[in-house]
Amino acid sequence: LDTTKAGAVIIDRKHSKPAMPVIRVDDPYVSALQTVKIFYPEAEPRLVGIHPSAVIAKSAKLGKEVGIGAGAVIEENAVLGDRVSIGPNAVIEKDVVIGDDSRIHANVTIRHHCKVGKRVIIHPGAVIGAEGFGFAPTEGRFEKIPQVGIVVIEDDADIGANTCIDRAFLGATRIGRGVKLDNLIQIAHNVEVDDHTVIAAQTGISGSTRIGKGVMMGGQVGITGHIEISDGVKIGAQSGVTKGFPPGATIFGYPARPIMETKRIEACLVRLPELLKRVAELEQALKRAKEDIQGD
Amino acid sequence: LDTTKAGAVIIDRKHSKPAMPVIRVDDPYVSALQTVKIFYPEAEPRLVGIHPSAVIAKSAKLGKEVGIGAGAVIEENAVLGDRVSIGPNAVIEKDVVIGDDSRIHANVTIRHHCKVGKRVIIHPGAVIGAEGFGFAPTEGRFEKIPQVGIVVIEDDADIGANTCIDRAFLGATRIGRGVKLDNLIQIAHNVEVDDHTVIAAQTGISGSTRIGKGVMMGGQVGITGHIEISDGVKIGAQSGVTKGFPPGATIFGYPARPIMETKRIEACLVRLPELLKRVAELEQALKRAKEDIQGD
Amino acid sequence: LDTTKAGAVIIDRKHSKPAMPVIRVDDPYVSALQTVKIFYPEAEPRLVGIHPSAVIAKSAKLGKEVGIGAGAVIEENAVLGDRVSIGPNAVIEKDVVIGDDSRIHANVTIRHHCKVGKRVIIHPGAVIGAEGFGFAPTEGRFEKIPQVGIVVIEDDADIGANTCIDRAFLGATRIGRGVKLDNLIQIAHNVEVDDHTVIAAQTGISGSTRIGKGVMMGGQVGITGHIEISDGVKIGAQSGVTKGFPPGATIFGYPARPIMETKRIEACLVRLPELLKRVAELEQALKRAKEDIQGD
Repeated sequence: LDTTKAGAVIIDRKHSKPAMPVIRVDDPYVSALQTVKIFYPEAEPRLVGIHPSAVIAKSAKLGKEVGIGAGAVIEENAVLGDRVSIGPNAVIEKDVVIGDDSRIHANVTIRHHCKVGKRVIIHPGAVIGAEGFGFAPTEGRFEKIPQVGIVVIEDDADIGANTCIDRAFLGATRIGRGVKLDNLIQIAHNVEVDDHTVIAAQTGISGSTRIGKGVMMGGQVGITGHIEISDGVKIGAQSGVTKGFPPGATIFGYPARPIMETKRIEACLVRLPELLKRVAELEQALKRAKEDIQGD
Repeated sequence: LDTTKAGAVIIDRKHSKPAMPVIRVDDPYVSALQTVKIFYPEAEPRLVGIHPSAVIAKSAKLGKEVGIGAGAVIEENAVLGDRVSIGPNAVIEKDVVIGDDSRIHANVTIRHHCKVGKRVIIHPGAVIGAEGFGFAPTEGRFEKIPQVGIVVIEDDADIGANTCIDRAFLGATRIGRGVKLDNLIQIAHNVEVDDHTVIAAQTGISGSTRIGKGVMMGGQVGITGHIEISDGVKIGAQSGVTKGFPPGATIFGYPARPIMETKRIEACLVRLPELLKRVAELEQALKRAKEDIQGD
Repeated sequence: LDTTKAGAVIIDRKHSKPAMPVIRVDDPYVSALQTVKIFYPEAEPRLVGIHPSAVIAKSAKLGKEVGIGAGAVIEENAVLGDRVSIGPNAVIEKDVVIGDDSRIHANVTIRHHCKVGKRVIIHPGAVIGAEGFGFAPTEGRFEKIPQVGIVVIEDDADIGANTCIDRAFLGATRIGRGVKLDNLIQIAHNVEVDDHTVIAAQTGISGSTRIGKGVMMGGQVGITGHIEISDGVKIGAQSGVTKGFPPGATIFGYPARPIMETKRIEACLVRLPELLKRVAELEQALKRAKEDIQGD
């Protein structure tokens, strides 16, 4: 602090007050990040007005101050809440409902009947509500099972670019409140991701799996179908998860195990070539010892 | 069955007839799934009519009852069969051919000269026929090799959302009849996927690899280039496949091995820390034994 | 060569001249690939003219001979260099700058303020400049941190289909000159990929990591955040990289290690079940030996 050229600093409330202008807060890291909102108030301005090239069905219902970009398509009976923003060339299919203040970016596709909450952000290229991967094996080929459910995305969720969330077979694939999904994620049919869970890029979750609240996953994780991940579980990047773990567990690896177990195994793996040598030496030594004894 | 409130049930033909209305079938699971088609006949209705905002080249040839969504682009000499449906804002480039009853969803891109069979479904955001990843190393940089082949997708295939199938360097990247590809899959140039193979999400297949008939792959599998996967091979999720295996083999792991071998190794891995300790104890015991003998 | 029906062949300059027309070169493989350019000069012709359905803001600046496809959207103050080609339904947001001879394919999204160099190719469905995945944990939920930086893609880069490159939190996410990114790749905020690096499909690079020059990565690699990969490092497919390695190192595995180390461990893994048996036998033998000695 003695050498900074800054005019003011954000410091932890617990620190003593230095001889310069300060803002004392509980969490300086978070507060520093939040100042970005002050310096860049218009970082992501809402779209204003409806572009004449947008194609909007007569039966669609638009709230107040809705913004719709060029070439966007809003199909029959879609309902857009107040201040909703639909990016250029996005496609909102029939009977979709989008809550107030949500922002759908360019080239997104939201398929028919899906429901999006308030203040949701869906980044470019994401596909919401494509048919789930459901096929019944029939005489050496696979017959499509119609996927007649929907996707429900709750308030304050954030869906990354080119991420795919499939519609349910029956019922709904559900993304809970405040869930943050990074880019290129795959959420299969009938998955439920509970509130405030955060998932990094390129992770895939197989059908009918239920992810608890406040779960954190690294990137490129794979989770098998029909299992339940407890609240607060943390999963390391690239893990392959095939079963549940207790709430709050930190797991990692392929297959995923409690992280300390995986770390212990990894530490041993490096010693494996040496271990093989030592066992061979033991065998030789024992053989010689036997010969010595028999030679006695 | 004694307690169900259902008005009728679907049961295995082999079971004795209970005291309520039943439909007796060979495979109750498959038949139950198929009833969805009866209860939701219009789950995925075809697009009807050509939206005035669609841009269709004069030289394009359209079959009977073709449906084209708002903002879709059909370029020169494209040929669409009867009852083909092209979703909003999809782009069908020049000289593409699409067979009868195929359905191309919103925001799909099919690049020039690619061929799509009959009854094919391509989900939103998929990219068919992007240039393959071909570069020749030249003086410390990489020079692009034009990719002048195409993609051929045969009848009844199903291509997932945001999946990418690259055009061939020469010839064709081929997706066989009835192949089911899930979302976010990467199929590189000159790959061949033979009939009725099923591949789960986020799997990637490297250039010139040939996948046999009736192969089943889990999600996030990676397959190296220029190899051949035999008919009927089953590959577990997240496996890394670097060589071929006999027809019908079930393989798993990184690197992929016959599944029983991988399971055996995994079971041993958990015991590795204990094994290291046991070997150290053996060494100590042998040392003491030697000292005892020498001490005699 | 004695049996070929070819009218002429390309051979290594070092070989003696056979009795037929030849072209003698330094690298026959590269030269053979390059002949494709001669036989297919129009493999990827530029778009010519501006389609009347394209939506171009009045404040956008277009260079000479720019081609813009049907339904493409060019927002306020965007600048397109000479001979730039924008595919159908692509979206170029406000204040984007694209250099001469670059080619942006169908359904691409380039978000506001991003900069693209000369002769860059961006394949269909790619998303450039989506907001990075930045959230501050606050009272059991996650608060969005505005991402106010940009993406800079330098000359001669090639960006694969449906690949995502996130904008920086502050500053720029940078893709260097001649970098080749395959399909479905995730580049997180503030990553830097230096010149002439080549990355295969479905690889993901976490935030603020710096990749050196001339690095080569296989597909489905995952790289942790805030690390530095040295120049010329080669990374095998599906590796999980959690730390740096010296320039030119070849690394592989999960976690990534020098390739010879990983191969050595893999070779030992196969012998692990047998090793456990041998150790149990040693323990038995030692126990018997002790009994024998005590029995003496």
